[in-house]
Amino acid sequence: MKKVKIIHLGIGKVGKTLVDQILKNKEVIRRTLGIYLIYSGLFNSKGGIFSDSGIDIRDVTKFPGNAVIVDYDKVISFLDENYIIVDTTASSETYGFLDLALKKSCYVAVSNKKPLCGNFNHFKRLVQKSERRFFYETTVGAGLPVIRTLMDLILTGDKIVQIQGCFSGTLGYIFSEIERGIAFSEAVKKAYELGYTEPDPRDDLSGLDVARKALILVRTMGRKTHLDEIKLTSLYPKQMEKLSVNDFFESLKNLDPVFQKRTVSAGKKGKTLRYVVTMDSESCRVGIEEVEKSSNLGSLKGPDNLIVFKTERYLANPLIIKGPGAGIGVTAAGVFADILEAAKLM
Amino acid sequence: MKKVKIIHLGIGKVGKTLVDQILKNKEVIRRTLGIYLIYSGLFNSKGGIFSDSGIDIRDVTKFPGNAVIVDYDKVISFLDENYIIVDTTASSETYGFLDLALKKSCYVAVSNKKPLCGNFNHFKRLVQKSERRFFYETTVGAGLPVIRTLMDLILTGDKIVQIQGCFSGTLGYIFSEIERGIAFSEAVKKAYELGYTEPDPRDDLSGLDVARKALILVRTMGRKTHLDEIKLTSLYPKQMEKLSVNDFFESLKNLDPVFQKRTVSAGKKGKTLRYVVTMDSESCRVGIEEVEKSSNLGSLKGPDNLIVFKTERYLANPLIIKGPGAGIGVTAAGVFADILEAAKLM
Repeated sequence: MKKVKIIHLGIGKVGKTLVDQILKNKEVIRRTLGIYLIYSGLFNSKGGIFSDSGIDIRDVTKFPGNAVIVDYDKVISFLDENYIIVDTTASSETYGFLDLALKKSCYVAVSNKKPLCGNFNHFKRLVQKSERRFFYETTVGAGLPVIRTLMDLILTGDKIVQIQGCFSGTLGYIFSEIERGIAFSEAVKKAYELGYTEPDPRDDLSGLDVARKALILVRTMGRKTHLDEIKLTSLYPKQMEKLSVNDFFESLKNLDPVFQKRTVSAGKKGKTLRYVVTMDSESCRVGIEEVEKSSNLGSLKGPDNLIVFKTERYLANPLIIKGPGAGIGVTAAGVFADILEAAKLM
Repeated sequence: MKKVKIIHLGIGKVGKTLVDQILKNKEVIRRTLGIYLIYSGLFNSKGGIFSDSGIDIRDVTKFPGNAVIVDYDKVISFLDENYIIVDTTASSETYGFLDLALKKSCYVAVSNKKPLCGNFNHFKRLVQKSERRFFYETTVGAGLPVIRTLMDLILTGDKIVQIQGCFSGTLGYIFSEIERGIAFSEAVKKAYELGYTEPDPRDDLSGLDVARKALILVRTMGRKTHLDEIKLTSLYPKQMEKLSVNDFFESLKNLDPVFQKRTVSAGKKGKTLRYVVTMDSESCRVGIEEVEKSSNLGSLKGPDNLIVFKTERYLANPLIIKGPGAGIGVTAAGVFADILEAAKLM
C-alpha cells in the first residue's frame, strides 16, 4: 500500500469538486491501484489547514470552519517525495511554491495555466527539468487527453506538421450562433446570460485565454516561445477595452455588420467562421479563420473543444479529440487523473 | 539513468517498424526521460536471439541472420523487474509466457489482442492482477488513446452510460463507398484490391476482429464477459463461410440488393449505415446500425476509427476520439508509447 499525501491549493468550484471526487473514489483507488490518498493540506489565498498525517475535509463547503489557519510556507519543511501538490487556483503567484516543491522531490498537478505562461524558464523548470513529476493535462481542453497525446507523439519520434484547435467553449458557442444567423452582439449577450462568459466577456473575447493554451502547446512541443509571440487577434478593437461592461455591450452592435459580412462571404465558399488556434513548426496564430463547413473544425457545434493533430504519421487522416473542454466536473476529473498518474510513479 | 531491457515477440510489419522507431529515438529518450532502452531479445515463432546484456538489432530486416537461435523458454531465468516483454504477434500462444513474465515482476506491452480475448481469467490475471504492469493501448484503435481514456474515466469515478464506436478502418471504407452509391460487392472488391482487407476478406466482414476490440473494452469496464456473449452480426450469411475466396466474391453480388435497400431506407430518414460497436452498462452488440448522417458516427469518412464516450460527466457533449485506428506506423508508435509508459514506472 502506497501512501500519497495531497496538498491542495485553490478551493474554488473546481477545487471543491475535486475534493468531492477524491473522497468518493478513495476506497476504489485503494483497492484497485493500491494507492492510499491522504489529504494533508487545503489552502486558499487566505491560508489553510495542514497536517502531515492528514486533515478532515469531509465538509469542504464549510472550509476553513474551525480549522487552524496556517501560512503554506510553514508546510515546506514537511515536503518530500510522498507529497503531491495540486494547484486548482487561477493565480500567477503559485509558481514559487510549485518550483520549491519539485526541488523537494514532490509531484505536482495543476489546472492553473498561469505558472506555465510567464517566464519561459519557469515553464522549463516545471515541465522539462522536473523529471516528469509535473502534470498539467487540464490546462488545455480540461479532461480531454490533449497534452499527453502530444507528448506521446513527440516522444515516439513523430513530427508535428500542424495542430489546429478550438479551445474556447464560449467562443465555440458564439460562432455556432453566428452561423445560425444570430448577430454577433446578440450571440455574446446570449452567452453572457447563459453564464458561458466570464463576468467581463472581454476576458473571453480578447482570445487571451485561448492564446495561453496555444502557448502551453507550443512550449510542450519544445519551442522557446513567449506569450507576446503568439499572433493573437482579438474579437473587438483595442479602443473598446476601457469601456464599462454595459457600454461594451452597447458598442458590440457596431461590430455586427463586420461579422455578418465575413459570415456571408465565407458561406459563399462553403465555409464558416471559427476562432481557431493554428500552429506549425514555425508559427502560432490565434484568431478567426474561415474553415470548410464539412471539416472537423467546421462541423463543431456549440461549446465543444476540438484538437486536430496532423503529423508525419497522422497526415491524410489526422488524430482528433473532441468534447467539452471546460466545465467543473470534467476539469476536476482531469486533475484527479493526473494525481493518479503521478501517484503510480511515486 | 534507468536501464530497461526489452524482449520483443513478433517481428512482422508492426514489429519491424517498432524496432526501427526505437532505434531512431533511443537517444532522445535517454536524454529527455533518462531511460536507456536495451534490446535483449527478439523472437518470432521459429525462435530468436537473446542476450541479457543486449543484442545487435541494427538490421532487423536480415533477422535472424547469423544469430544464435534460442527457444524463448530459455530466457525465463533472466527475467526480473528490469524487463519489459513486447508482444506484437497475432498469436494466441503467447499468454503463458506473458503471464509468467508478469509473475517475475516484468512489465508487458502488447498489440496482440488474442491473449485478452480468451478465458476471462487470463484477462483478469494480465490486466487486473498485474499491479498495472500490463499495457494494451493499441489493441483498440491502434495509436489512438482509447484504453487509457476509458481507464481514467472509470478510476476518477465517472459512470459509463454508453460507448459507441467504429473500430474497423476496412469496414469504415466499405460503408463510405456504399454511402456514395457503390454496390456492396464492388466496395468489398475495391477494399480488397487496395490491400485494406485481409487476404480472405471474410476475416474483416465477419466482424470478429471488431468483436474482439469490443470485448477488450467491455472487460476493461470490469465486466466478466466472454466473446460469445457479444451480439455479433456478420456482414455475410453463414452458408458463405465454406466457399473459396473466388466463389465468395461471386456470391457477394447476391447481397447487393439487400444493402442497397437498407441504404435507401436509411437515407430517407436522413440516416446512413455504419458498422458499429454499441455498449452500455448491460449489453454489447456489434453490427450494422442506422445513424444520423450529421452525427459523429454518420460523418465519419473512409478508414478512420471513432469512439464516442457518453458518461455521467460527458453526457450532452460526449468525449470523442477519431483517427486512423490501424496502420503499421501508428500501431508501432502506440506500442512504443506503452513501452515508455511502463519504463517510467519501472
